[in-house]
Amino acid sequence: MEKYRGLSPAEFFHRNREMAGFSNPVRALYQTVRELVENALDATETHGILPEIRVEIKLDEERDNLVHVTVADNGIGIPLTEVPNVFGRVFYGSKYVIRQTRGTFGLGGKMAVLHAQITTARPIYVKSSTEEESVVHEYKLYIDIGKNIPHIVSLKLRRKGRRWHGTVVSIVTEGAWSLARRRIDEYIRRTALIAPYATIVYRTPEGEVVYERASKKLPPPPQIGKHHPRGVDIEILKTLIRSLGEDMPLKDFLRKYFEGVGEKSAVDFLTWAGFDPSTPVRSLRISDLEKLASAMKKYGKWRRPRPITLSPLGADLLKEGAKRILEPEFVEAVTRPPASYGGHPFIVEAAIAYGGKIEPQNSPLLLRFANRMPLLYDEGADVSRKIVDSIDWNIYKVKFPAPIAVITHVCSTKLPFKSVGKEAIADVPEVEKELEIAIREVARKLRLYLSRMERLHEVKRKEITIRKYIPEVSRSIAYVAGVDEKLLERKLVEILEKEIKKRGVAVNAPVPQAA
Amino acid sequence: MEKYRGLSPAEFFHRNREMAGFSNPVRALYQTVRELVENALDATETHGILPEIRVEIKLDEERDNLVHVTVADNGIGIPLTEVPNVFGRVFYGSKYVIRQTRGTFGLGGKMAVLHAQITTARPIYVKSSTEEESVVHEYKLYIDIGKNIPHIVSLKLRRKGRRWHGTVVSIVTEGAWSLARRRIDEYIRRTALIAPYATIVYRTPEGEVVYERASKKLPPPPQIGKHHPRGVDIEILKTLIRSLGEDMPLKDFLRKYFEGVGEKSAVDFLTWAGFDPSTPVRSLRISDLEKLASAMKKYGKWRRPRPITLSPLGADLLKEGAKRILEPEFVEAVTRPPASYGGHPFIVEAAIAYGGKIEPQNSPLLLRFANRMPLLYDEGADVSRKIVDSIDWNIYKVKFPAPIAVITHVCSTKLPFKSVGKEAIADVPEVEKELEIAIREVARKLRLYLSRMERLHEVKRKEITIRKYIPEVSRSIAYVAGVDEKLLERKLVEILEKEIKKRGVAVNAPVPQAA
Repeated sequence: MEKYRGLSPAEFFHRNREMAGFSNPVRALYQTVRELVENALDATETHGILPEIRVEIKLDEERDNLVHVTVADNGIGIPLTEVPNVFGRVFYGSKYVIRQTRGTFGLGGKMAVLHAQITTARPIYVKSSTEEESVVHEYKLYIDIGKNIPHIVSLKLRRKGRRWHGTVVSIVTEGAWSLARRRIDEYIRRTALIAPYATIVYRTPEGEVVYERASKKLPPPPQIGKHHPRGVDIEILKTLIRSLGEDMPLKDFLRKYFEGVGEKSAVDFLTWAGFDPSTPVRSLRISDLEKLASAMKKYGKWRRPRPITLSPLGADLLKEGAKRILEPEFVEAVTRPPASYGGHPFIVEAAIAYGGKIEPQNSPLLLRFANRMPLLYDEGADVSRKIVDSIDWNIYKVKFPAPIAVITHVCSTKLPFKSVGKEAIADVPEVEKELEIAIREVARKLRLYLSRMERLHEVKRKEITIRKYIPEVSRSIAYVAGVDEKLLERKLVEILEKEIKKRGVAVNAPVPQAA
Repeated sequence: MEKYRGLSPAEFFHRNREMAGFSNPVRALYQTVRELVENALDATETHGILPEIRVEIKLDEERDNLVHVTVADNGIGIPLTEVPNVFGRVFYGSKYVIRQTRGTFGLGGKMAVLHAQITTARPIYVKSSTEEESVVHEYKLYIDIGKNIPHIVSLKLRRKGRRWHGTVVSIVTEGAWSLARRRIDEYIRRTALIAPYATIVYRTPEGEVVYERASKKLPPPPQIGKHHPRGVDIEILKTLIRSLGEDMPLKDFLRKYFEGVGEKSAVDFLTWAGFDPSTPVRSLRISDLEKLASAMKKYGKWRRPRPITLSPLGADLLKEGAKRILEPEFVEAVTRPPASYGGHPFIVEAAIAYGGKIEPQNSPLLLRFANRMPLLYDEGADVSRKIVDSIDWNIYKVKFPAPIAVITHVCSTKLPFKSVGKEAIADVPEVEKELEIAIREVARKLRLYLSRMERLHEVKRKEITIRKYIPEVSRSIAYVAGVDEKLLERKLVEILEKEIKKRGVAVNAPVPQAA
């Protein structure tokens, strides 16, 4: 007889921690640092606070495979009563709203806790306080895996001396620092580049690096938004209708609960879809909801979602980032207008850098970012790699081996990651399409640049040839016509330079600005 | 103020269905078929039943993007009372034991149900009966996502006429058949090849293909096993100790609850690790458990886990499969001895095929299998790809472009998949090591074959040269020595052929048998 039973969510993720990126001691340490840093950034920039992050990595004095990871932030803090569940219960958190954050389900932090406790048996340490609270609270806790509830080992309360708010998390976990170090260094470096408004103090056994903030300008924080009508599903409709305080006509339901729907667009759509706009929503049957969801997906006239829930980097900052990391000779970036998939708005940004310090390779170097997080692993499974590999770069005058780098950045209220480990973005058709448009758009600018460079080189080549013959020509003419050789030579050079300048300017004028 | 709340597991996976491979209508349809076929095979071969599987795909008559998928098996069936939870509750199933199965957490089936209901609003249909039951039960049900409980739409019971047992599942889901078709055809074809004891009837809008079983020999089904001591973690120890009916000395605990541990090896290990073998387990503190788990991982003298929980294909069957799919000129396979990671035993098999109908390519073609499942997606993220790409194939006399294919098969009671979609195996160090050994082992045989082929070609080349000169040489000698030219020529050819044969045999003798 087969035995059937249930499993707690914590038990599930304990058994399947590879899914969240905790597959070996190198990766687990990388993932632990990453989850804590991303939580710290979410607790600050998302709420309009200029981030001050401290990341500290220390090796255990007794056992060399134990690593102490501490991440401190000046964020909004976690209320006293919420700390245990936020760190000690899988599927509990504050990130289940429509807003761009680095963390997607608050699962990563718990996976780091799970990994620590199954490898070292030590509880984690959390110190936190919100602006409103008058005390600082310090917890030591772990997860009761079988029951998926937090187990509190100790709780200390201290009255606050100054108005501190923020969170400090300290985890002792099994990890291979010497092997993970290079990746973690790179991760912090790229994070500092994509968040130039953050000050990050990064202390490791090898020393301290301080990334001072380069700008005090914080991009406008994302707001909490509503679903976009294109691509909602029946479940979302059911959940929304169930949560209504009172029944209402269909048109009001659409207007109030969906992004970018007004009185007129609601009525237009409902008429098109064959619904009476005044039908009370609660009278709809499941088959009506299917028809409604399907029509909402297909309707071609919805406004594009406003990007209020999103916080893209912007083409300029992306170019700045590319220049700093890659030091190329050419760089161009684009931010696409907002689009949506499955009711979630997203914005795609892409950049191409060429030449300079980029090493020539047989296919473009790819740098991927998602919600301002650098993605370092699983490139082969990412939709960006798929697109870059499918493009015929000959069209854009790129001949391999070529010194070319493609940078992609996808912002969304829900990134379609392939796994809980947040490393590869799935090939959702809408995202794939936008990424391809963005990459091709900057690739066309690269082609312009490369063909102009070609022409410039052509002119240069001719100039060199002509210049070489000027003295001889001058000498011959001077001899035949009896004019002053030097004067003639000067004149000819003048004419040449004027022509070159004309062509040079004509060639240069619309060249996309080089780095 | 941030709002915190919990999420049901069904809600979590509804929001994150890309993680389980349901990222677009093409992939979703592929994944739905795959999950149902794998459940069908698990319900049969795992229990010693020769599988008879029927897979039927029909397009909806009204809406062209709706697909009806039906999979029927002659397996053990699901008891009346278990059907609702097995299909309608995330984190519930029968697969949470130590035994090799295709399905890993029973999650895939629920994801197929979730995808169907959010795209079509139709319940799924399940008909089942176990051998013991006297009725056949037919359910229509869906998942209440917010509560993660099954919602039963209808239940019919019928008395059984004959002793039928098995399960039929029918799902109406959104999918793009025309685009998914090639992958699904390929998936079924490869499944039929790796399960030659199964009869699979595959009916699609394009017609019917019947894969008749090629053999009535079912490999010995895997048994339910115990944890292996190497690599258990503190949580596993805690769970086992908590589940004990009565307290017992440490040595008995190890002997009874771990794979391959006897009285003597338990005492040897405990003495080595600094524990008193007679300590009652319930008196151990967390810090003791940490020390114990850590020592169990490090101890070098555990027996390798017996492969009773596993059911590898075997080198012969793997070679047969490779011959049938690839029609190569050379094929060699190896099954490695069992190993373990994190307390889970695994066996790695690998094969290399060369020449014949394999197209020359710039890197080896890779065919991946895991627990007898073909893996078709996300090759770039898989540990096998990583190894194949890291090998310097020059060592093995392979010069690209070359007609070479590498086949890998990992069997385990818990495959370290990177995502719930079960497509890429994570780079767990133990698995990576075994895979590399296996691939290099068959690669060495390929080198032997290739260098012998080289020598054969050398001999052949010489033969051709010599043969060309024999008539002329014969003519000259005949003229000088006055002997019969034709006789001399025959003699010389005889000598040549004898020599060639000698060398040919010497060259051929230890060549690994060609396909």
